[in-house]
Amino acid sequence: MTAIGFIGLGVMGGPMAANLVKAGFDVTGFNRSPAKVERLVAAGGRGATSAAEAVEGADVVVTMLPDSPDIEAVLLGGSGKGDDGVLARLAPGTVVVDMSTIRPDVARSLAAAGAERGIGVLDAPVSGGEQGAVDATLSVMVGGEAATFDTARPVLDAVGRTIVHVGPAGAGQTVKAANQLIVGGTLQLVSEALVFLDAHGVDRSRAVEVLAGGLAGSAVLDRKAPAMLARNFDPGFRVDLHHKDLGIVTAAAREAGVAIPLGALVATLMASLRAQGHGDLDHGALLLQVEQLSGRADD
Amino acid sequence: MTAIGFIGLGVMGGPMAANLVKAGFDVTGFNRSPAKVERLVAAGGRGATSAAEAVEGADVVVTMLPDSPDIEAVLLGGSGKGDDGVLARLAPGTVVVDMSTIRPDVARSLAAAGAERGIGVLDAPVSGGEQGAVDATLSVMVGGEAATFDTARPVLDAVGRTIVHVGPAGAGQTVKAANQLIVGGTLQLVSEALVFLDAHGVDRSRAVEVLAGGLAGSAVLDRKAPAMLARNFDPGFRVDLHHKDLGIVTAAAREAGVAIPLGALVATLMASLRAQGHGDLDHGALLLQVEQLSGRADD
Amino acid sequence: MTAIGFIGLGVMGGPMAANLVKAGFDVTGFNRSPAKVERLVAAGGRGATSAAEAVEGADVVVTMLPDSPDIEAVLLGGSGKGDDGVLARLAPGTVVVDMSTIRPDVARSLAAAGAERGIGVLDAPVSGGEQGAVDATLSVMVGGEAATFDTARPVLDAVGRTIVHVGPAGAGQTVKAANQLIVGGTLQLVSEALVFLDAHGVDRSRAVEVLAGGLAGSAVLDRKAPAMLARNFDPGFRVDLHHKDLGIVTAAAREAGVAIPLGALVATLMASLRAQGHGDLDHGALLLQVEQLSGRADD
Amino acid sequence: MTAIGFIGLGVMGGPMAANLVKAGFDVTGFNRSPAKVERLVAAGGRGATSAAEAVEGADVVVTMLPDSPDIEAVLLGGSGKGDDGVLARLAPGTVVVDMSTIRPDVARSLAAAGAERGIGVLDAPVSGGEQGAVDATLSVMVGGEAATFDTARPVLDAVGRTIVHVGPAGAGQTVKAANQLIVGGTLQLVSEALVFLDAHGVDRSRAVEVLAGGLAGSAVLDRKAPAMLARNFDPGFRVDLHHKDLGIVTAAAREAGVAIPLGALVATLMASLRAQGHGDLDHGALLLQVEQLSGRADD
Repeated sequence: MTAIGFIGLGVMGGPMAANLVKAGFDVTGFNRSPAKVERLVAAGGRGATSAAEAVEGADVVVTMLPDSPDIEAVLLGGSGKGDDGVLARLAPGTVVVDMSTIRPDVARSLAAAGAERGIGVLDAPVSGGEQGAVDATLSVMVGGEAATFDTARPVLDAVGRTIVHVGPAGAGQTVKAANQLIVGGTLQLVSEALVFLDAHGVDRSRAVEVLAGGLAGSAVLDRKAPAMLARNFDPGFRVDLHHKDLGIVTAAAREAGVAIPLGALVATLMASLRAQGHGDLDHGALLLQVEQLSGRADD
Repeated sequence: MTAIGFIGLGVMGGPMAANLVKAGFDVTGFNRSPAKVERLVAAGGRGATSAAEAVEGADVVVTMLPDSPDIEAVLLGGSGKGDDGVLARLAPGTVVVDMSTIRPDVARSLAAAGAERGIGVLDAPVSGGEQGAVDATLSVMVGGEAATFDTARPVLDAVGRTIVHVGPAGAGQTVKAANQLIVGGTLQLVSEALVFLDAHGVDRSRAVEVLAGGLAGSAVLDRKAPAMLARNFDPGFRVDLHHKDLGIVTAAAREAGVAIPLGALVATLMASLRAQGHGDLDHGALLLQVEQLSGRADD
Repeated sequence: MTAIGFIGLGVMGGPMAANLVKAGFDVTGFNRSPAKVERLVAAGGRGATSAAEAVEGADVVVTMLPDSPDIEAVLLGGSGKGDDGVLARLAPGTVVVDMSTIRPDVARSLAAAGAERGIGVLDAPVSGGEQGAVDATLSVMVGGEAATFDTARPVLDAVGRTIVHVGPAGAGQTVKAANQLIVGGTLQLVSEALVFLDAHGVDRSRAVEVLAGGLAGSAVLDRKAPAMLARNFDPGFRVDLHHKDLGIVTAAAREAGVAIPLGALVATLMASLRAQGHGDLDHGALLLQVEQLSGRADD
Repeated sequence: MTAIGFIGLGVMGGPMAANLVKAGFDVTGFNRSPAKVERLVAAGGRGATSAAEAVEGADVVVTMLPDSPDIEAVLLGGSGKGDDGVLARLAPGTVVVDMSTIRPDVARSLAAAGAERGIGVLDAPVSGGEQGAVDATLSVMVGGEAATFDTARPVLDAVGRTIVHVGPAGAGQTVKAANQLIVGGTLQLVSEALVFLDAHGVDRSRAVEVLAGGLAGSAVLDRKAPAMLARNFDPGFRVDLHHKDLGIVTAAAREAGVAIPLGALVATLMASLRAQGHGDLDHGALLLQVEQLSGRADD
């Protein structure tokens, strides 16, 4: 039975680890908060009191952490040289699957650090949210070596539904970044359209109905516009996190010399929404800012 | 049998008029080019040698013309006062359905001019393209009085599939403008994402596959991205026309004091694409400009 | 003695007409508000009760009106055909100097309408504000025929200090539009810089001192930043007017196929400032909006 | 006599160190390239074969290096912990003046690292270019403790003309960043205006003359526009460097939650110019890109 060390048992990682247990894997989990480790134990997994303990004897290590520095600290350790992190403890042939959303260049350097030790490292960020994690219906965008992908495939199948190997190391994060660019931009476009329609006295529910059926149709229009029109901005996906992700997008575009004028403007607008104190709202709250800038804020 | 006067038998109007004949209406059509009138006659309609002749005795007048000044000239006549145009010739109770894409404020003033004469004027722009016109599957966004909409409904049903009354006069054009804002913006976002992915060495077909399944999914990604990746920029919908429509969007947003920062930037980028000589390409050619600005143009 | 008919005796036109009187011209003025005509009479000019009366026997007609439609109505009359406006009343050889800020294409069409009647029409917008009008130190940007410019030169010399013939008809308005593009953009850049400095705890007065001395130096930094830092937004030049002018800029850029991405964004931001109810503030109030978007608004 | 250790004897640092010698300081310099060290020796200074040697016994250490990582490596050493860098070798009471243009947050952390050792660290970036370095007429924007500033003042006076203490540690870099934001934005605005004027057939030299005299006037218009109109894009200040600096600006704005929509767009446009292969041109080459986007490129 494949032994999995799982680091990061939060909102996403917790149910994912539980699904791995359910699928028959031998899962040992670690999280800074012991309560989350206990939840995994209650679900049939094993608990560890450190990352090092969690990965001992693991065939596959899965990480699900908030941001680039977190995953670097866990895998490479404090010095940044990799001598006291998890990578240094793993046997050659082990596979690491990082499912966090981080910078593509960090993902590439982690893969390189793994390769030096004979360890395959995949970047495998997900989309689908907490519900997708619970239901094991996540979409997973995987970057790394094909052979490593094949090895990790059964693990990924246990947590997601659409599993696509999109390219070499970093490619998974790049696709996730592109995803966040498109989603953020579409939310802003739909917000602009909704305020535009309102200002011209149009029945917005009917307008959304006809827009959704044509070339303007999108998952954002289908899944987010109704809540936006109902002024329900409970997350969902928080502005704070989308802001973090758009930072990854703009940095990666800058690194590669890619012109993303709309992306840069969306990143500015998301940052403004956060600076105005709305970091905890759903990202559909971009609508509030368009209303504000149009002199149509409620208050 | 309802008598229809149809003015504007072009790429869109021609098949629409033919579908009205097929549906059993008594259609008399006019176009400046006699060849297009003959095509309607061949399809079972009647031909007229002037707009005035086409609308004589009509219960419903349908117009399908390129831009605001064209429809003003036809309905109001040369002086702009309405004395020598089509409106002045119609009996009270006649219904005019303008299916052109024009400025919402012009649509409102035409409706007002009609109302003075007891003539109901609807703005009813469409989406769905030439294929939708041929197949009678257009989406139609209708602005105007509810009673007028009810009267015109059988005519609209004969040319489209999704017929939605979205609000008072001008509302149809407003929704069409919102449609063009979202479509133009989404095309630019997808272009930025595709170049971003390419620059990072990602397999773009696989990336589109996984993106399309999540919150980044859209009709643009489904219907336009494959042609864009295949570098097929045959229209489809021409840059020139989308440029015209974005002029309507930005003017209408300005008029209403609505902030559309992304829309304004997309309008600038579409105008640049046109200024660089690509007005005759499909609007998916926004991809070419992102490549150019990223130093990744083919030539 | 040259006879001048002066139409439009407002904040700018009033003191300009008075300066023409002072310079020895025989000035007959008209304004809709009789009080303003009386002020010109008190300054030594003559009053008229209509535009037609003001231009009777004039060698040079000067107009100073708010916007394109106003000047069209005065020069061409209500029908737009020119039969009942001022141009139709003038003898061939008369010179018209329009000092309003209007659209370049309207300026060109007015010049063409004049040329048909043997009347030279100059577009001669000014910069320098009310103080410059009072002090006769305006900068004047003149478009039109060289010979007409030479004829009008003594008149212009009496109201301004820097008088430059910049090109054919419309060129004066084009330069004024470029002026408003640069001024609006620089105000926004300085606003962004000031909030940026404040957020990082920098002493802004000292920062402005060192910035003003280098390549970042500008008239905006010299003349506007101190009032902005003192939170004095009394106009000066109102947001409403700059909004109107940026509408001219974006329309003229669109017409000519010129890419002005910064200009388009500035126009959006100025429109937002106005939509939020700040149309009567000085355009330096762009600072308030940057503060708002940065979560640093006072209230 | 005050002993100065000077690290970084490049285009800027070389003449600055020479000016310190001229002013009577005892200067020991280090640069990776021995040729540059020899030039300092020829000018009357001393040469060192390592940074460590250069700072031995120094009262004041001056650094002038390309970017944040360079100065971190020199002051803190390779581990990032500060144990093997220059800071660890200096006696308490020594003053370090970093005149490089780097990230404000890095400047703050360097100052903190110095403070732990009783060493005052100033961030003191300059503007004025190579000519200003040679002529000792630089503007210097200084962040740090007032007492440290007073100590370093005589050194700064020997290399610059306008020396302003703008705030605490990092403030100098913040002001430099604001400087680069305004300069980059103004260059783009002027480029947009120049293409706009050209497209409308205006005599641009005359237009610049009248623009420069009004509220649109700026150092960019005075010093850069003539070369831009002459199509002379020899640096001056290279696009590559301005691109680096705008990266600092956007990162520092993001860190502080400050909305810089124009700044973000300028950064995108500068990055595009570089991606298109123009990194070695003067930053006035933004004009070329506006021409390109307007379909008015020469070739």
